[in-house]
Order: sequence, then C-alpha cells, then structure tokens
Amino acid sequence: MRVPGQLYLTYLLALCLGLLCVIFVVYWNATWRGGFAWDGSAMQFNWHPVLMVTGLTVLYGKAAVLYRLPLTWGGSKLPWKLLHASLTLLSFLLAVLGLIAVFDFHNKGHTPNLYSLHSWIGISTVALFTGQWLLGLASFLLPCTPLELRRRAKPLHVWLGSTIFILGIAASVSGINEKLIFSLKGNNGTAQYSALPQEAQFANMLGVLIVVFGLAVLRILSNQAWQRPEGENSEVTQPLLQD
Amino acid sequence: MRVPGQLYLTYLLALCLGLLCVIFVVYWNATWRGGFAWDGSAMQFNWHPVLMVTGLTVLYGKAAVLYRLPLTWGGSKLPWKLLHASLTLLSFLLAVLGLIAVFDFHNKGHTPNLYSLHSWIGISTVALFTGQWLLGLASFLLPCTPLELRRRAKPLHVWLGSTIFILGIAASVSGINEKLIFSLKGNNGTAQYSALPQEAQFANMLGVLIVVFGLAVLRILSNQAWQRPEGENSEVTQPLLQD
Repeated sequence: MRVPGQLYLTYLLALCLGLLCVIFVVYWNATWRGGFAWDGSAMQFNWHPVLMVTGLTVLYGKAAVLYRLPLTWGGSKLPWKLLHASLTLLSFLLAVLGLIAVFDFHNKGHTPNLYSLHSWIGISTVALFTGQWLLGLASFLLPCTPLELRRRAKPLHVWLGSTIFILGIAASVSGINEKLIFSLKGNNGTAQYSALPQEAQFANMLGVLIVVFGLAVLRILSNQAWQRPEGENSEVTQPLLQD
Repeated sequence: MRVPGQLYLTYLLALCLGLLCVIFVVYWNATWRGGFAWDGSAMQFNWHPVLMVTGLTVLYGKAAVLYRLPLTWGGSKLPWKLLHASLTLLSFLLAVLGLIAVFDFHNKGHTPNLYSLHSWIGISTVALFTGQWLLGLASFLLPCTPLELRRRAKPLHVWLGSTIFILGIAASVSGINEKLIFSLKGNNGTAQYSALPQEAQFANMLGVLIVVFGLAVLRILSNQAWQRPEGENSEVTQPLLQD
C-alpha cells in the first residue's frame, strides 16, 4: 500500500507542534509566572497548565495517531497496542497530577474548585478519559473479553478518543484565556491583558499552537486513506496474552 | 441504501441541542445581562454571544450536516447545494454582525480589541469561514470552474468545514468563560463567579450544551456510513446554471 507523503508531512508537523506546545507552556510558566514548586503556592498551580497540556493534549494526541505510523503496520499489532496503552496511561497520570496541582493550590488558598466553564469542560474530559482507558483495557487487551464485544467497542473507542481530544483542546484554550485574565490585571507589576504585554502574546501563541497541533492530529485521524491496513479480524484476535 | 436509525436519532439530537443553545444564549443575556440594544452599551455587547452562537455554531452546524439528511439524497443535488450556500451565508452574516456588535461596543468604551486568546481564535475562525465560503462558491456553484479543480476542492472544503466548526466551539467556550469572569466579580450586585450563582450555572450549562451539540454534529459528519451516496462525478457535474 502506497503511503502518501502528505501523511509523513502532517505527522512531522504534529510532532514539531506538540514539542513546541510543551516548550511554550514550560517557558511561559517559568519566565512570567514564577516557575515551579509543590508547596501549595502559585508555583504549584503552574504545574497545572504544564501537566494538562503535556499529558491531555500533546502526549494524548501522539498516542492517538500512533497506529497511523507506517512502521507500525508490519507484523504483530500487539506491541503497538501496548505502547498505545502505555502512552495514554502516562498521559492520564500526568493529567491527574495536573488536577491535583490545581485542587491542592485552590484548597490551600480557600478558593472554590470547579466553578468555571473551563473547569467543567476539563473535569468532564478527564472523567471521559478514565472511562475510555478502562474501556480500551477491557476491550482490546484483556483476553477474556468476548470477540463480539471487542468488535463493537472499536468504533466507540475511536470516536470517544477524538471527542476527548477535542474537549481537551477546548479546555486548554479556555484555561489559558482564564489564567491570563486572572493574572494580567495591571497590578503586581504586570501590564493589563488588554495591553497585550509580551507574556500575553506568548501565551496566546501557545493557545494557537495547541489548536493547530490539535487540527493536525485530527487531520491524521480523520483521513481514511491513512488508516492502518487491517485484516478482517486483526483487531479482535490479538488481545493480551494471546499474541 | 439502508439508513440506520442512529443517524436519525443523532440528527434529532443535534436539532434539539442547537435549538436549546439558541434559547439558552438569548435567555442568559436577556435575564442576567440586561437585554439587547444597539447603542454602544453593554446591551449591544449582548448581541455578540447571541449572534456568534446562533450563526457560527448552531446554524453553521446545521448547514454542515444538511447533506446527511436522507430526504436530500434523491434527485438533483443543486437545490440542496443552494440551500447549503444560503444557510452558511446567513451563518456568516450573523457572525459578522456579532463581530460588529463587540467591536462597536469596545470602540465606544475605548476598550482594546483582539487581545485575548478567545478573540484570536474567534477572529481566525471568521477569517477562515470567509475563505471557505468563497472557495465553496467558486468551486461548487460557479459553472466556469474547471472540473478538476472542483474535484480537488471537495476534500479541502469538507476538512476546512469541520475545522472551522471546531474552532467556533473553542471560541464559544472560551468566550462564555471570559464573559462570566469579567461580569461576575461580586460587585454591581452580582455574586462572584466562584460562588457559582444561578447565572454562572446557567451560562456554564450553555457552554456544555454547545460542546455536546458540536460533538453530535461532528459525529454525523465523521461517520462514513452516513454520507450522501454519490455517483463518481455527481459532485463535479452540477455547478450553478448547469443543472
């Protein structure tokens, strides 16, 4: 099967954009938000955007497009399923750590949790991700799952995967916007957000990068011609321990 | 061709959710934000969320899934192309009016425009929408367009259509979040956003409805089995004036 060069280009673009997102979110918080700590201070909060963007967006996105890499197409699918499960598990753990960072910061400062639309979308994303990971484990790795259930679970798993990714992008954009509104008030030596100081330009650019990374990943996922060529039953006959 | 009941159910769900989004955004601004006017006041601003949600999200989403309606599958495609073009044009005009509402409000209050990430995503969405509409007109309705160009433009038009829709969802979520942060500061007789007063709960719910509507529309668009059955060349042989 001929693999179009456009797939490689889009894949490379997604790789570079993802890396840029991580660099940007770390640099933003290290340079303008005071850096990182785990002491209940604003420096602990700074882990929240870093861990969410790195876990729920970048790593998740890269795990989602793993099967589109032509080098994964030959031979057994099992090693790649295990890598996909590992990457999404790492992505999930980073996201949970990112949630702990913000809940802990809020609780120590007696700030309410989960009131903003950003937080509603974000927590729903992680809740769905939890279900998705467990569904994936049960459906595609455990050998005791009936084959029919495995077959039926795949379209749901694929659709829910993209859904969670899109929700993560919406949560990231609204979260960066919210953080800049809260932080850039023209006091504490900062300029106002509306004056578009360097930090605002940089963090806005981070938001744009996340969106473009998301679109590149969705482009790879949605192109039917770029899917892993599979035999009729290849998905259902390779659970864990049966390979 | 058998049409699965799930398509009808998802379509009905998208219709109801879209209607609910419009009702919610109007009710929010009419009840808690002081209603509507076109006088440069905050009441003029209130047209912004109403017009953007109605135009750029709900009407746009409904126009995008038009061809998935089985009743559009029989006979000539041209009337449906014209309806699709008309709905997206109306959607575009509402969005432009929504932009004028906020620019005018900002300018009269000497507030800078286009500084927040929300505004960057929003203005990019409308810019892409402009290009998309013109591309659609040139590619699929004008009879002078070369057939090869018409054929090549379709995948781009379809992909850009979903992209603009996703960007619109991200802009809506970040915009509602931003508006609630700016409005619910615990002064002027309002409770703080963090206290989650009734307005905050209601507008957050609007954001959730928009996201769920978006996911329903994307579900319809992404399911290959629900696409309009087309002959090899049906797309390229029905430009305007040639039907």
